[in-house]
Amino acid sequence: MDHVTLSATHPLNSSTADSALVLAARQQRGEVTPVWFMRQAGRSLPEYRALREGVAMLDSCFNTDLIVEITLQPVRRHHVDAAIFFSDIVVPLKAIGVDLDIVPGRGPVMAKAVQTSGDVAALRELEPDDVAPVLDAVGALAAELGATPLIGFAGAPFTLASYLIEGGPSRDHLRTKAFMYGQPQLWHELCGRLARIAGRFLALQVEHGASAIQLFDSWVGALSAVDYERFVLPHSQAALAMVPAGVPKIHFGVGTGELLPLMGSAGADVLGVDFRVPLDVAAARVGNGYALQGNLDPALLFAPWQVVEASVREVMRRGDVLSGHIFNLGHGVPPETDPDVLSRVVELVHEISSQ
Amino acid sequence: MDHVTLSATHPLNSSTADSALVLAARQQRGEVTPVWFMRQAGRSLPEYRALREGVAMLDSCFNTDLIVEITLQPVRRHHVDAAIFFSDIVVPLKAIGVDLDIVPGRGPVMAKAVQTSGDVAALRELEPDDVAPVLDAVGALAAELGATPLIGFAGAPFTLASYLIEGGPSRDHLRTKAFMYGQPQLWHELCGRLARIAGRFLALQVEHGASAIQLFDSWVGALSAVDYERFVLPHSQAALAMVPAGVPKIHFGVGTGELLPLMGSAGADVLGVDFRVPLDVAAARVGNGYALQGNLDPALLFAPWQVVEASVREVMRRGDVLSGHIFNLGHGVPPETDPDVLSRVVELVHEISSQ
Repeated sequence: MDHVTLSATHPLNSSTADSALVLAARQQRGEVTPVWFMRQAGRSLPEYRALREGVAMLDSCFNTDLIVEITLQPVRRHHVDAAIFFSDIVVPLKAIGVDLDIVPGRGPVMAKAVQTSGDVAALRELEPDDVAPVLDAVGALAAELGATPLIGFAGAPFTLASYLIEGGPSRDHLRTKAFMYGQPQLWHELCGRLARIAGRFLALQVEHGASAIQLFDSWVGALSAVDYERFVLPHSQAALAMVPAGVPKIHFGVGTGELLPLMGSAGADVLGVDFRVPLDVAAARVGNGYALQGNLDPALLFAPWQVVEASVREVMRRGDVLSGHIFNLGHGVPPETDPDVLSRVVELVHEISSQ
Repeated sequence: MDHVTLSATHPLNSSTADSALVLAARQQRGEVTPVWFMRQAGRSLPEYRALREGVAMLDSCFNTDLIVEITLQPVRRHHVDAAIFFSDIVVPLKAIGVDLDIVPGRGPVMAKAVQTSGDVAALRELEPDDVAPVLDAVGALAAELGATPLIGFAGAPFTLASYLIEGGPSRDHLRTKAFMYGQPQLWHELCGRLARIAGRFLALQVEHGASAIQLFDSWVGALSAVDYERFVLPHSQAALAMVPAGVPKIHFGVGTGELLPLMGSAGADVLGVDFRVPLDVAAARVGNGYALQGNLDPALLFAPWQVVEASVREVMRRGDVLSGHIFNLGHGVPPETDPDVLSRVVELVHEISSQ
């Protein structure tokens, strides 16, 4: 099978070792500050919307050709310094047989929420064959992208657990927390399984050519530091520990100002910072030893260009004190974003950082 | 008119001066740590649901008898140390003629979102007659409650502006921020008007017998500190400055860990802290000079009692270092809460603090 062959040829992707992204993640200076955008592959691009017409989200996530093409679109258009393969964090869950769908305008919805130990036990290990079309796409992308790194990714145990327990997106994560507080053993069993699924998925992506990975704990900002440390940290740690050594590991969540040092101790090289914490403040909070990724407020993309420009310069100014800075938004690209603004932001970041 | 008479007899409500809530807000020790719950008057109580049957939310907010009865229900049931009058933050907007409704399960929805300078100019000053049934209820409640303080409240300019600009509840506040960044002058005009409406409403409630006030900036945690300082602080300051001197002023928002010191400088005596920041950490962050309110995670109300108890004790332990602590949740009572758990929490807080 294709992805097995590729696995042999891409133990670590050497063609991207000098890329701006990999260097910044290792806290080394490259020629420019690397820039990419969370959700760059997707809804903001007309060429994406054209390609997806009539194709359900989950179908597109298991279609090698579509993954490859959609992942490349923003690289071609914006000249970003990294690709992130087009997918969704629930893809590995779907791949092991969880009955779920991604509902437009709502997000991932489970046919049945996880409640019992039987539900938890049904979450089996992820095998390469479960995600063969995805791994084939990763391999093809790594080859196609050459010196531009491909970022692999997975959802972190807490965020996956929240989708499974709530049965879909949630504002307050009340059921998730009630599960965590009320059935701590089952919670740890659930998150242990999710950590192995996420970790294995990340490792497979690296074997197939991904040059860096990002672990998305999108909703973990709903927790206090005390709960994070007890209920989440060991599992995020376990997931990240499964990534081959030497591969830069980025860890990100929204509203995680109080959690950044703990998220770092989960084993990340790069901490994604949302727009609520200025980069220099975040750096002071986490200490040395981490590169930071971020953190333009996505809402700024809808402001007049002079406001965008001033804000990008401000992020870059604060990022200048860091030992490694990967420019990104503080959250995903909103679907209504004018893609031309994103292209101009890339240009501006490169211009500022190459001066 | 009733509320004019009451206004003369209650310049400041002296019968509550020695209440646990007022003392804690002034950083003086009372006999117990006062406890009340945001959204204690409302959906979690069966007697509330019975009373509201067939009555639309906004109708109930302008019905003096209903406001009085609903406000008293949690005081009778839980023996909390303060009442907060039953209402919604959009009530003063409705009162000045904004075409809006409160849609069950969704929240406040505007007939037309605010976009133009004409829309902003249409937001006129609030006059006492606009909210006569509310002020009558406040007066009746103050008389009925005796030594138990009634907390008046209003929505802060940013949160009100977000509802007006988005046309309803929003997760990302993208339009609000785009308005703020793109039309700063009009933004300030809008928030100036909202500050006068909120400030006037708070002042009227105090005149009619409220013993303390809370300014809710529920969604302001969506902003960075830099944006808060520039676009929000002066307006929250203006609103709080309209509250008569000597009345304890509580200021609260969700996810405001990065903003607490600035929210204090808006003129608050008490800072409401959500569950993400432990009280002792919050105290270190804001310095002396503030009492703190909070901060049990509402999700804990769904945990087994021994977990609830341990968590309440932990909040109390951390609150023990404060010069003034008002026990509350870190956010509103979820509708699905078992009211008996709330009663037990009140009992426990009183028991711990009177030891």
